[in-house]
Amino acid sequence: MIIQLEQNITDSVKESIIEQVKSLNYKPTEVVTQIGKYIIGIGKDEFDIRQIGSLEGINDIHIVSDSYQLVSKKWKVSDTQIDLGDGVTIGADSFAMMAGPCSIEGEENIYKTIAHLKENGINIMRGGVYKPRSSPYSFRGMGIEGLKIWYKAARENGIKIVTEVMQVSQIEEMYDYVDIFQVGARNTQNFNLLDELGKVDKAVMIKRGISGTIDELLHSAEYVFSGGNERLLLCERGIRTYEKASRNTFDINAIPILKDKTHLPVISDPSHGIGIRDHVDPVALASIIAGADGVIFEIHDKPEEAYSDGQQTLDFDESAKLVKKIRSVLQLRESF
Amino acid sequence: MIIQLEQNITDSVKESIIEQVKSLNYKPTEVVTQIGKYIIGIGKDEFDIRQIGSLEGINDIHIVSDSYQLVSKKWKVSDTQIDLGDGVTIGADSFAMMAGPCSIEGEENIYKTIAHLKENGINIMRGGVYKPRSSPYSFRGMGIEGLKIWYKAARENGIKIVTEVMQVSQIEEMYDYVDIFQVGARNTQNFNLLDELGKVDKAVMIKRGISGTIDELLHSAEYVFSGGNERLLLCERGIRTYEKASRNTFDINAIPILKDKTHLPVISDPSHGIGIRDHVDPVALASIIAGADGVIFEIHDKPEEAYSDGQQTLDFDESAKLVKKIRSVLQLRESF
Amino acid sequence: MIIQLEQNITDSVKESIIEQVKSLNYKPTEVVTQIGKYIIGIGKDEFDIRQIGSLEGINDIHIVSDSYQLVSKKWKVSDTQIDLGDGVTIGADSFAMMAGPCSIEGEENIYKTIAHLKENGINIMRGGVYKPRSSPYSFRGMGIEGLKIWYKAARENGIKIVTEVMQVSQIEEMYDYVDIFQVGARNTQNFNLLDELGKVDKAVMIKRGISGTIDELLHSAEYVFSGGNERLLLCERGIRTYEKASRNTFDINAIPILKDKTHLPVISDPSHGIGIRDHVDPVALASIIAGADGVIFEIHDKPEEAYSDGQQTLDFDESAKLVKKIRSVLQLRESF
Amino acid sequence: MIIQLEQNITDSVKESIIEQVKSLNYKPTEVVTQIGKYIIGIGKDEFDIRQIGSLEGINDIHIVSDSYQLVSKKWKVSDTQIDLGDGVTIGADSFAMMAGPCSIEGEENIYKTIAHLKENGINIMRGGVYKPRSSPYSFRGMGIEGLKIWYKAARENGIKIVTEVMQVSQIEEMYDYVDIFQVGARNTQNFNLLDELGKVDKAVMIKRGISGTIDELLHSAEYVFSGGNERLLLCERGIRTYEKASRNTFDINAIPILKDKTHLPVISDPSHGIGIRDHVDPVALASIIAGADGVIFEIHDKPEEAYSDGQQTLDFDESAKLVKKIRSVLQLRESF
Repeated sequence: MIIQLEQNITDSVKESIIEQVKSLNYKPTEVVTQIGKYIIGIGKDEFDIRQIGSLEGINDIHIVSDSYQLVSKKWKVSDTQIDLGDGVTIGADSFAMMAGPCSIEGEENIYKTIAHLKENGINIMRGGVYKPRSSPYSFRGMGIEGLKIWYKAARENGIKIVTEVMQVSQIEEMYDYVDIFQVGARNTQNFNLLDELGKVDKAVMIKRGISGTIDELLHSAEYVFSGGNERLLLCERGIRTYEKASRNTFDINAIPILKDKTHLPVISDPSHGIGIRDHVDPVALASIIAGADGVIFEIHDKPEEAYSDGQQTLDFDESAKLVKKIRSVLQLRESF
Repeated sequence: MIIQLEQNITDSVKESIIEQVKSLNYKPTEVVTQIGKYIIGIGKDEFDIRQIGSLEGINDIHIVSDSYQLVSKKWKVSDTQIDLGDGVTIGADSFAMMAGPCSIEGEENIYKTIAHLKENGINIMRGGVYKPRSSPYSFRGMGIEGLKIWYKAARENGIKIVTEVMQVSQIEEMYDYVDIFQVGARNTQNFNLLDELGKVDKAVMIKRGISGTIDELLHSAEYVFSGGNERLLLCERGIRTYEKASRNTFDINAIPILKDKTHLPVISDPSHGIGIRDHVDPVALASIIAGADGVIFEIHDKPEEAYSDGQQTLDFDESAKLVKKIRSVLQLRESF
Repeated sequence: MIIQLEQNITDSVKESIIEQVKSLNYKPTEVVTQIGKYIIGIGKDEFDIRQIGSLEGINDIHIVSDSYQLVSKKWKVSDTQIDLGDGVTIGADSFAMMAGPCSIEGEENIYKTIAHLKENGINIMRGGVYKPRSSPYSFRGMGIEGLKIWYKAARENGIKIVTEVMQVSQIEEMYDYVDIFQVGARNTQNFNLLDELGKVDKAVMIKRGISGTIDELLHSAEYVFSGGNERLLLCERGIRTYEKASRNTFDINAIPILKDKTHLPVISDPSHGIGIRDHVDPVALASIIAGADGVIFEIHDKPEEAYSDGQQTLDFDESAKLVKKIRSVLQLRESF
Repeated sequence: MIIQLEQNITDSVKESIIEQVKSLNYKPTEVVTQIGKYIIGIGKDEFDIRQIGSLEGINDIHIVSDSYQLVSKKWKVSDTQIDLGDGVTIGADSFAMMAGPCSIEGEENIYKTIAHLKENGINIMRGGVYKPRSSPYSFRGMGIEGLKIWYKAARENGIKIVTEVMQVSQIEEMYDYVDIFQVGARNTQNFNLLDELGKVDKAVMIKRGISGTIDELLHSAEYVFSGGNERLLLCERGIRTYEKASRNTFDINAIPILKDKTHLPVISDPSHGIGIRDHVDPVALASIIAGADGVIFEIHDKPEEAYSDGQQTLDFDESAKLVKKIRSVLQLRESF
């Protein structure tokens, strides 16, 4: 159950609610986010909702049968919108486009990419400065210095930044230069990282695990939300299956299922989802007609020279064409 | 390699070509389809194509590096169109809609379904008369008598029939009443069935195996084609993965990959692909924007009373709405 | 529920039992096997077992909560033993070794293999005469003529034959020359084939599907059993997963789980289970210590020259060493 | 390539070797572990090994064709043995048994477990004090205080400790109380954690990822090794597949494949590998006969009351029986 408390509730009133929750054989957890105050009760027994609902200090109470609670649409039925400031919003009626290179490679690449984004009306740039690599001998990213250069260029041009954070100790140093902290597919269940991101007042986008279930993704979001941060995005990026004709198997089913289960915005990553440059376009469009709230894809002025992921990266011509198609598909979707 | 022979080639000329193929260390297989005559050469050595190309009796020769040959787009670059007669075509610029119940249940259900199809401009009806069921104690379909009743109603109304054939011995008895023989997901690698369907002059739609690879699907099609029947459709219907939030994982990637690898029409089955009635719609539309040549979905006038698959079956209202959306998406796709 | 009928039951008594089953809201299916007569009732309602158990004509009645019935250990708690004649038995306290080439290649190969089997005390030979191949251009086996040559040699030497049957029409022609009909991994859910094998009075070994579940394997066995044939073996041969370091992932868990769920003998196929010649040995031994009732593995006098599967085939030296280890492991297992 | 340097090499000699590596178009990485000094060269060009081998300051040079290097058996062909002190060793001819509860629950549970371990000759105890849980509302372990209580009891009784570390910041606080740092299945690709564990002079056991490949596991080990720590163990604990009859699919194939590819000890975790208490025993024995260097399993004096994982936890009787069987299997294995 989710109990929404009054903002100015006193400690003694809160304690009596907690006692009442315990008496129903539910385990209470207090949650204070940047937006609201809640008590989450975990249990299985049936009870009469009026026993709690009529108590002092309570705004509202919801029975949520899912094991995740605060991210469930059974509680909050309207779609959540994330506000990045400067008029950039994601979710509800705001569709998000995020594009950029796999790795941030240097000033020239940054400025060329930003110019392309502005020409095409994209206002969020992706790029990695800390790169998770399976081999320790591979390029691991430009690090914080790369982020600072990128940030300067982005702010000059009104562009927001989404980039991966790999560990707790990076949060603080990255904080000033990031608009959306991305949790990568290898860290979806790095629970300490999720806990810490719950304390941050910036948006967090959680990628589905490499072979994560939809349910696990929602539980990972519950970590951040119950840690205090409601500004959350979820991202489908393909799962690992036996099929090796594509890098991953983009789980198109996950789009409507997530939209049905949660009020959080759902972003699709067709670049990793299929991993083949020529086919990023159909997967992107498919995810949008299926209901995605945004799309993140890899672009580079010279994909064949990119430091990483060149095989799934669009050049600027391809990107411009895709953006046009995305706008047409969105327009059609809105007409349904 | 694929060698297209002249239709009126003499045996002795053909034999000399076969000898030449052998001399290059390629294993020759003679293929005579209802449309053409070919010699398929399987081997790995490099050779000068002119050694063969200049021989008497040869229309054309193609080097195909895939291990499947006749179904490859490297040989036949233009999309194949299947003609079912009476102006009903599938593939190239003809999009196919196929709908109907999971199982054929009786006259009333047949006539109601046909009326709905006609109202909505759908001219191919699906339905099972032989049902593969994991338990021997489940309903196994109405059999050939059900098919005959269905056929009568369909022909009266200008509707074509697609239905599953489960074994070689059924082909002959079903032949007169079927427009498209469907090979089910459990029979994708039933090679004897594929061999026999190669001898039939009716269209065959092969569903991808329950955990079949894209490559295996193409090889299964090669069986039918090399057996003599070029009238082939492929169908993506979801694959088995660890994710249990949906019945199967619809492999949206397979649509553009198949379209890239083969000239055969690619059909999508969103009903089995996700297995959840409320979400058939977004998966159907996604597969179309991604390039599918047709869609097959389950409908019933009362899904909750359907003999099988009710949980993924649309009612007629939902079906009518989906058809309208499909037409809009197709129109948009054509504008790209 | 499983109702075991008296062998000499009259039709009218049987009918009254069937009516009683229907009245409990259970769907009755009559099963007559080569050994017994049963009525299988499928339903979910609770009832008092004495309502049925006290009726005339009934030997015994069992409530089986699994959706498979006759193959369940909840009904028949003691292990089933299959008798191939001439003192060759499989299951209960009889461990089975089956070895031979992937494909039967000709007389010389047959006689060499048989000599090796006899030297090592193996009395069942495996080999394919009908080979399921993903490409239509590959070697498809020697067919019935190969089987006849093999049979002659085997009978001269007291060796039993296990070989794959791929379709219904092959059953009759193969019948005289086969001791165990093998259903291959691509045919585990070829329900017509299973139905027909239910009518045969020879042993049937069903391989788990390429990505079949344990539950599906048990249901496939239920088809054959309820079709009339109780002489069944199940075979774990590895499943398809994302891991490509081995050909398949041998599911060692399936051995104890199957032994727990069914009374039928469980055979392991380490050759396909790992697909790497050097590692067949540890997987074979692992499956035995885990409880397998038998093992089937591929051998050849010159694996590098085998028509198929050479990469996972043992030579005779390796085979002889493995057999010795198998005997030691069995001896240890019996001491537990 | 791996170049083993002389321990007392001068900087200028080392620099000239690095220059030589670069001149061959190989990217050099300097590695200093607690045991040796190396230069790892990553590249693809062929070269004459004598060009490097004859240089001053070099003990040995090896060409390793795998993309992992220092963990490869192509370099170090003899099995590595890990020494935990006090005569406790793992690997080569030392088989390791590790047992204990899923979660450390308190003093009583600790002392009971230790008594059981000592009675059965087990000298390494497992237990979680930091628990990765998919839901934020679940029990997350006793933390550092639990570890200290445990450590005191263990040291009094000559028992070594293996426990999971979940993040970089925990390493320092846990350091004094841990003999083996365990990296859990959700952290196999937490590269920052691996980097930091490379700086520690205690043993590290890396579990295979929830759906990690064998190759990824080896690369994760390469992170720790190249970070400076050679004291590494690998652990197979089952992978995620479509099969839901068991919690995970224990990949028995991984045991011989890992033993073939790396010199590091390979541990098996049958408790997570199958997840069913009654079947832990056969999977444990299977992994040992297949070549595992050790086994880790969950025990509890009252499994049904365990804080977590009770369904896969053995009681002390079952544990004692398993230990006896393990010893018999080991004895047999040594006789091969």
